[in-house]
Amino acid sequence: MVARWQPDARGRLLRAALDLFTERGYDATTAAQIAERAGLTKTTLFRHFADKREILFQGQETLVALAASAVAEAPRDASPFELLDAGVRALCSIHADDQREIGRQLNPLIAESAELRERAIFKRAAITDALRSALAARLDDPRLASVLADAGIRAYYDGFDAWVESTDDVPLEHVVLRELAAYEPLLPASAD
Amino acid sequence: MVARWQPDARGRLLRAALDLFTERGYDATTAAQIAERAGLTKTTLFRHFADKREILFQGQETLVALAASAVAEAPRDASPFELLDAGVRALCSIHADDQREIGRQLNPLIAESAELRERAIFKRAAITDALRSALAARLDDPRLASVLADAGIRAYYDGFDAWVESTDDVPLEHVVLRELAAYEPLLPASAD
Repeated sequence: MVARWQPDARGRLLRAALDLFTERGYDATTAAQIAERAGLTKTTLFRHFADKREILFQGQETLVALAASAVAEAPRDASPFELLDAGVRALCSIHADDQREIGRQLNPLIAESAELRERAIFKRAAITDALRSALAARLDDPRLASVLADAGIRAYYDGFDAWVESTDDVPLEHVVLRELAAYEPLLPASAD
Repeated sequence: MVARWQPDARGRLLRAALDLFTERGYDATTAAQIAERAGLTKTTLFRHFADKREILFQGQETLVALAASAVAEAPRDASPFELLDAGVRALCSIHADDQREIGRQLNPLIAESAELRERAIFKRAAITDALRSALAARLDDPRLASVLADAGIRAYYDGFDAWVESTDDVPLEHVVLRELAAYEPLLPASAD
């Protein structure tokens, strides 16, 4: 059997999974059905993802790496809030053109499934932790890093949800940074 | 068959589960084995818990309710930090005498199992959310409530872990409140 390269297999599996979960429910959909809908084999699906759930949460490692390196590479004289701002901007940078449509399908699925909710919270905790570690390395103050990372991740998620629900023609980053700005007066201004 | 009242069935199942998970590993232990070790029937186990995992996370609802009502019932003139302090104290109040020993067994199990880690993070998020909602109701400022709740829950968990690992004869509350005090200078002093 010749293994053929499948263009955008991961994206096709995501769209097929979202459609099937929406039509039939998360529990009633099998990995085989998702692969078929995407025009791929089950083997291809399992080469990319451990199970059907993971299809929805692809891209986590990329997000984590982007946020961490943006903080690490921010200017040396950046304030704590500027470091956070750099990390949060990076989180907004990798979203696909159809991310809003994906969010509109994904959010109700997560709200309805305990299993998906649990995975979504796990992903959020992993991103928070990566941002916190990167900030702690720069600030040399783990508690300050924690307070900043927690607020930054809230701004990112709340901004993302507001953006998904709105019909305004604005980029994700715009909504997230507006939310982050609302946190700024609540956050410590310096590391001392 | 006569249903007999089983004194402290939940506590006995917890101890049996911790011992068996430690001896044989989490995956290799069945609910039937846990019930047998606890001297109970499988039916009794499933009357109390949906699955073996939930045995380890019992008490979450009580923690959530205690923290929320402590914040709701704090004095009318309490500052934002005093409201948070009331909630975090309440989280420390229900721990059993043998909680430290339970923590010593439980923490390594959670570290080794992705399934348990995921459930632990879910529990933490639920407690954070309850504390955040209670603070938001008092402060009328959801972002301030979020920043406070996030720091308070970090102080609670980090204090708990430090207490479990230490051999000092001090109460849990002592270690947690010391950790919370270290966050105080990083938190906003008032709602305005």
